[in-house]
Amino acid sequence: MTISIVGVGLLGGSFALAVREKYPKARFIGVDASAVHGQLALAKGIIDEMMPLTEAVAQSTLVVLATPVNTILTLLPTVLDHLPVDATVLDLGSTKEGICALVDLHPNRAQFVAVHPMAGTENSGPGAAFRELLPGKNLIICDREKSQSDSLSLVEAMFNDIGMKLFYMTPQEHDLHLAYVSHLSHISAFALGLTVLEKEKDEQAIFDMASTGFSSTVRLAKSSPQMWAPIFDQNRDNVSQALADYIDFLQRFKAVIDERDVPGSLDFMVRANVIRRVLEGIEKR
Amino acid sequence: MTISIVGVGLLGGSFALAVREKYPKARFIGVDASAVHGQLALAKGIIDEMMPLTEAVAQSTLVVLATPVNTILTLLPTVLDHLPVDATVLDLGSTKEGICALVDLHPNRAQFVAVHPMAGTENSGPGAAFRELLPGKNLIICDREKSQSDSLSLVEAMFNDIGMKLFYMTPQEHDLHLAYVSHLSHISAFALGLTVLEKEKDEQAIFDMASTGFSSTVRLAKSSPQMWAPIFDQNRDNVSQALADYIDFLQRFKAVIDERDVPGSLDFMVRANVIRRVLEGIEKR
Repeated sequence: MTISIVGVGLLGGSFALAVREKYPKARFIGVDASAVHGQLALAKGIIDEMMPLTEAVAQSTLVVLATPVNTILTLLPTVLDHLPVDATVLDLGSTKEGICALVDLHPNRAQFVAVHPMAGTENSGPGAAFRELLPGKNLIICDREKSQSDSLSLVEAMFNDIGMKLFYMTPQEHDLHLAYVSHLSHISAFALGLTVLEKEKDEQAIFDMASTGFSSTVRLAKSSPQMWAPIFDQNRDNVSQALADYIDFLQRFKAVIDERDVPGSLDFMVRANVIRRVLEGIEKR
Repeated sequence: MTISIVGVGLLGGSFALAVREKYPKARFIGVDASAVHGQLALAKGIIDEMMPLTEAVAQSTLVVLATPVNTILTLLPTVLDHLPVDATVLDLGSTKEGICALVDLHPNRAQFVAVHPMAGTENSGPGAAFRELLPGKNLIICDREKSQSDSLSLVEAMFNDIGMKLFYMTPQEHDLHLAYVSHLSHISAFALGLTVLEKEKDEQAIFDMASTGFSSTVRLAKSSPQMWAPIFDQNRDNVSQALADYIDFLQRFKAVIDERDVPGSLDFMVRANVIRRVLEGIEKR
């Protein structure tokens, strides 16, 4: 089995490291716009060789698109055009509606499986990849009925084998939920980072006065702009609504503070405390 | 030396555990409105006995006010009224302006040292207390020139001995900076928790679809409303301004997304990435 990893970064690299351990006889080809990333991926044993996309696709059993989502939109139709007849392509993109709509009517649509592994860190590139990123996490598969059964079975088996738990939903459901539980978290962190940096021109004051509360809330502000700008753009309708809802809660909280409505303030926070039960559910996974 | 811990919760309890290790001959008295907290603090060896406030103060070398800040406002004048002549009282409150202003003209003001340890977790109560909470963290001392030198030296020595790094500033500077690097982080987490809970009525969807990005950003939403409502109220002017600044950034980010201004979106995030350097400074501590 030959697996091509297109985009040998955090996700592509970590996927390859996890699969390689379970499928020791598989051969891994890397495809990346960055020669430096390719070198690092080779050195780390993420992939066995690097080559251009067309060459890689022609030899592949499975092609994995692990680039930013705007690049996936560019590459996926081309890959589907040239994919060998029994091969499969999947994408790992953080948005699904746009990608699925783009190839919905492609003659080879059945060879495509749309997935999204719910995993990541704030770091990027092959240097950030590690084998333990995906195992134990959740994988979303969208529009499964549009994938041919051999392709779907291959992908399901592979992700099961690396210890992920599979969930199924439409691309619309995926993008809506993710706007709230993922994309909004990232935007809130970026905005918090900017607010503090703007105020505390003297970064030393932030060093001196912040404690781990600040660090955890703003950690995601270290995330890659190149990865996230396309995600927010593709999911703009849902993200915009999530932002509107969030801003609304913040304005209501501000009003309660301005009016010295301490019971109202308590009430907000008591209701938010319900999240403890949810988080303990996540952390137990 | 007898040290009274008024409020045997996360901060008071952790302080006692750290100091006890360095000052093994000191005697610790606990004062708490909650009999259950008192029992737990005794059982954990945080304090040696529990007693009412007046009795405790009469026997103390040092009184530590580790209650929510509204309670500190109530207790501090009374403690200063009854403090033995060579004794010292300090508070650990997360706001400083209101507390310092309240006792600025008290006849025994010189026996008071206003401090704030920059440390905490989202948990509360004596069950949450642990010896390693304070060591290695920063301590802010405000209005040091208003404390008599014996009291100041005692407090500085004690916090140095438990491994904290001391910083000095006015109460006004303290409350301003903390609104941005601490209070805003907590509010953003509370609001994010509410936004997601409101949308995802089915908590299972949050379980299934969130990953550690969400968990870290919303962790502070587990924080105690009873602790935070008085803090936001006492620091309302600064907190309200910090919120206004934050909401402004969020609205600008939303506009950039609505207008599909991808370069603008990238720019926001690249500027926010500067926080990486700041966070790495904090994490190295």
